[in-house]
Amino acid sequence: MAISCPSIFGSEMLPIESGDMSPPPSPLILTQDELKKIAAYKAVEFVQSGMVLGLGTGSTAKHAVDRIADLLHQGKLMNIIGIPTSKKTHQQAVSLGIPLSDLDSHPIVDLAIDGADEVDSNLNLVKGRGGSLLREKMIESACKKFIVIVDESKLVPHVGASGAMPVEVVPFCWKFTQDRLQGLFDYAGCVAKLRSNNGGEDGEIFVTDNGNYIVDLFFKKDVGDLKIASDAILRLAGVVEHGMFLDMATTVIVAEVEGSLRNFVRILLGEMV
Amino acid sequence: MAISCPSIFGSEMLPIESGDMSPPPSPLILTQDELKKIAAYKAVEFVQSGMVLGLGTGSTAKHAVDRIADLLHQGKLMNIIGIPTSKKTHQQAVSLGIPLSDLDSHPIVDLAIDGADEVDSNLNLVKGRGGSLLREKMIESACKKFIVIVDESKLVPHVGASGAMPVEVVPFCWKFTQDRLQGLFDYAGCVAKLRSNNGGEDGEIFVTDNGNYIVDLFFKKDVGDLKIASDAILRLAGVVEHGMFLDMATTVIVAEVEGSLRNFVRILLGEMV
Repeated sequence: MAISCPSIFGSEMLPIESGDMSPPPSPLILTQDELKKIAAYKAVEFVQSGMVLGLGTGSTAKHAVDRIADLLHQGKLMNIIGIPTSKKTHQQAVSLGIPLSDLDSHPIVDLAIDGADEVDSNLNLVKGRGGSLLREKMIESACKKFIVIVDESKLVPHVGASGAMPVEVVPFCWKFTQDRLQGLFDYAGCVAKLRSNNGGEDGEIFVTDNGNYIVDLFFKKDVGDLKIASDAILRLAGVVEHGMFLDMATTVIVAEVEGSLRNFVRILLGEMV
Repeated sequence: MAISCPSIFGSEMLPIESGDMSPPPSPLILTQDELKKIAAYKAVEFVQSGMVLGLGTGSTAKHAVDRIADLLHQGKLMNIIGIPTSKKTHQQAVSLGIPLSDLDSHPIVDLAIDGADEVDSNLNLVKGRGGSLLREKMIESACKKFIVIVDESKLVPHVGASGAMPVEVVPFCWKFTQDRLQGLFDYAGCVAKLRSNNGGEDGEIFVTDNGNYIVDLFFKKDVGDLKIASDAILRLAGVVEHGMFLDMATTVIVAEVEGSLRNFVRILLGEMV
């Protein structure tokens, strides 16, 4: 699918490199997936030959990985080393012929591009609704630059406003850990639920790439200070990691529809990378 | 083996219940294992019928589990439910006929008895040199009372003074996590080493009950504020748990030899349980 649209960098118009995208005949309303693709393609403009790249996971990041592979095959990018953030992305990248490595061999990552489930006004993220939060956090905490790509539906007034904040826990006595997690956030009306593959309570338990479970926390109210919440979660024995990515994103690219007429790429706290 | 000895509670003499231990003919120097047994037997005096009990792991805790089983079989204890802190202790308890459950069914534990690798003057512990730190910490953080049983060799001026402080990490990119852990404590001359089954660098990697690895941190100097150190470790994505048990022990029972002549049981911060 070919997409092109006007864009904004800060308050200025920023043309998107067209690549293999051709201009539309007229302003059009894009689907959510098309918006994701716009954000992904915009992010890939910041990739340079020779970089070690964190390759994100999820429906938005998938577009970025596809685009990187296209540019490699076209010879417009060279000597890229990809560090996949999940087994799924690993498989995608292998199938596309992107050279891969890992953090053990490349502990410093030049740039990571990944989606997010939520972005608040301070560029704090919720990630992990797809289940890959731990590897994503390991890799994205090792990045010099971390570009987050989202469509506008992911912008939230506060963390947890749109749905689950996932926590990866060890399987051993997960119910005990789930209860303690819920208890931590009683004040925010928290409900904790073990994730299953079918979303139901009687479904097969979802297992992460690391062999752990996910407990999803649903908040009725703002949890308040996120760093305090983060430490409280991490201090619970049985917790492996949580899906709040605080002070990690250096740039957020948001593809959005404005006034139902024009399509924009907005770059939040647009630090040029 | 039958052991008996004088003991001290705080500054007062505290007789040890003899149980099936018979008095020695004269003061004698006990081996380290005999001292462990004395501490373990002393701790089991605080067990009451009907309790939910955390059953520790390791050479000292093993004596406590044995003793609890003896008292059950003698009818001196009844209706005990054990919550084992490792697969090994689970096996031991099953073989001894101790009724068992887990934290999911019994999220509140009346009393846990476990050994420790180090005890500092504030009753902060290092545990996990045997590899069971995560399950131990989950269970012992759910206890109303936590009695730690050690021989005198475990008393240290500061955490890490006698050897490794273990950290359980996910296998994914463990080397990266190991390097970051070492980097956290550069100021304390930290050396981080992945644990192997034979202790050597080329040995088979040690795997915990939870399918994770252990990185042992060796400090040349005092790491300083332990709570700050704890949070710094837990904030590293890739870390599952560490072996510092801070503000958890309510009582520490130390079996020791004094003046090469008399054997004592000393109860540190002897909160009566």
